[in-house]
Amino acid sequence: MIGFDNGVFQEISKISVPITSLSVNRGYGVFEFFEVINGKPFYGERHIERFKRSLNILKLKTDFDNRFSEIIEELIDSNDFSDFYIKIFVLPHDQKFEGFYKASMYAFPTEMPQYNPELYEAGAHLITKKYHRFLSGAKSTNYLSGQYWFNEFKDDRTVDVLYHNGETIQETSRGNIFVVKDGQLFTPEKDILKGVTRSIVLDILKEQNLSFSETDVSLETLFGADEVFLSSTTKLVMPVTQIDDNVIGKGKVGKTTRKIIAEFQKIKKSYCS
Amino acid sequence: MIGFDNGVFQEISKISVPITSLSVNRGYGVFEFFEVINGKPFYGERHIERFKRSLNILKLKTDFDNRFSEIIEELIDSNDFSDFYIKIFVLPHDQKFEGFYKASMYAFPTEMPQYNPELYEAGAHLITKKYHRFLSGAKSTNYLSGQYWFNEFKDDRTVDVLYHNGETIQETSRGNIFVVKDGQLFTPEKDILKGVTRSIVLDILKEQNLSFSETDVSLETLFGADEVFLSSTTKLVMPVTQIDDNVIGKGKVGKTTRKIIAEFQKIKKSYCS
Repeated sequence: MIGFDNGVFQEISKISVPITSLSVNRGYGVFEFFEVINGKPFYGERHIERFKRSLNILKLKTDFDNRFSEIIEELIDSNDFSDFYIKIFVLPHDQKFEGFYKASMYAFPTEMPQYNPELYEAGAHLITKKYHRFLSGAKSTNYLSGQYWFNEFKDDRTVDVLYHNGETIQETSRGNIFVVKDGQLFTPEKDILKGVTRSIVLDILKEQNLSFSETDVSLETLFGADEVFLSSTTKLVMPVTQIDDNVIGKGKVGKTTRKIIAEFQKIKKSYCS
Repeated sequence: MIGFDNGVFQEISKISVPITSLSVNRGYGVFEFFEVINGKPFYGERHIERFKRSLNILKLKTDFDNRFSEIIEELIDSNDFSDFYIKIFVLPHDQKFEGFYKASMYAFPTEMPQYNPELYEAGAHLITKKYHRFLSGAKSTNYLSGQYWFNEFKDDRTVDVLYHNGETIQETSRGNIFVVKDGQLFTPEKDILKGVTRSIVLDILKEQNLSFSETDVSLETLFGADEVFLSSTTKLVMPVTQIDDNVIGKGKVGKTTRKIIAEFQKIKKSYCS
């Protein structure tokens, strides 16, 4: 598999980061991650837009800032398959600071994480933690907590950790959350990374004339919800039926969640043709 | 300069981390950092002890877990100088988890950060931020916040950011803090990385029969202090005379701080001979 190594296309196994890099030393860097369907980045423009916002928040500049789309096209052409995921990194290599860090860009195809299809039928589980993700508007490489809390997953249906601030919920370590109560949908808006899949779900809600609100969502509202689901690039729209020890609604995938999953699948299908 | 690359001694410029590494992807890793004086690691045993604690907290295992001291000695011998700093990293390379992550070990000499000697005469400045460092007992590579807040340093006497939880202070991004009030010394004990330099300062306080307490220190106590100083591997014992817009005490380096700096210098000198 071929990757992009700051200007050069080469085998991924040859792409590496100097041990002295600020990304290794300080966990400082930005990434983006998206699906390629039929040779075409799924909502590529929205991912690139968000990537640019992340770079701006962490004050990173590369030699390729105006050529991201072009490089991704070339990367897709360089590899022999048309359905996969692409990961892009921008990582600063030294500690010099003049308003912005000069940084290197890397991009490469990566394996699709496989979730058990059963999760979409029976519902996934979450655990919760009080935690605030620093610079939450940026997709930084700062995932120590999320990675660490994998240790506490009690069963194989637990897919992620949901962050809260003691009163309201924000996001999971790698996705956004939606709550359904009495036919109304709620999703947090503050202190989150606004996911591209989240934005596609919001498009669906508008199109389907479903009543929704981007607003603070309390832990109380969460635990009293009829339905809960996640949105993420890898999980797409995934129903949640248990959070910590609390069963959500009737513990089954709800009608609204099923509707949104179906609409999401239609969009993906239309993207392939 | 020669570094240790997970079993092989080679030029530092050739040591790198695969782009697919968990350390790059998730900011997951542990490091240690210490001075070598006259070919001998300064308080090397305490650093190794702490390093092992960090590895345990992040659940990392290497092929060299029982040979750290030996590898460091060999690294010192491999290089042509006797006074420098050594950085050690342990970084997991894949996402497999079986209780512990299998991880690679790297170690290499690194340049000594240069602080203006004037800071020790006139006192350094700090800024404060409400922030909790995740797994604060471990020296993880998770420094996005500390690195980011460098942007907000307003003058060249500002050397670090001090973290607090809204009520009490914990530590700076790269060091510990001591507060002097009415001849008593106070230093936080909870939610911090316990620095080796901090432990040397505590030794001095005991030896000098100075009255001290490891305890919660409120922001109020901090701002009302007579003297404040930092302890860190690179800053050693550094006086602080301003925090945000607050002048500490009379805005000059105090008697107690001077005493501890002098005692610390004696220890370093004795180490060289």
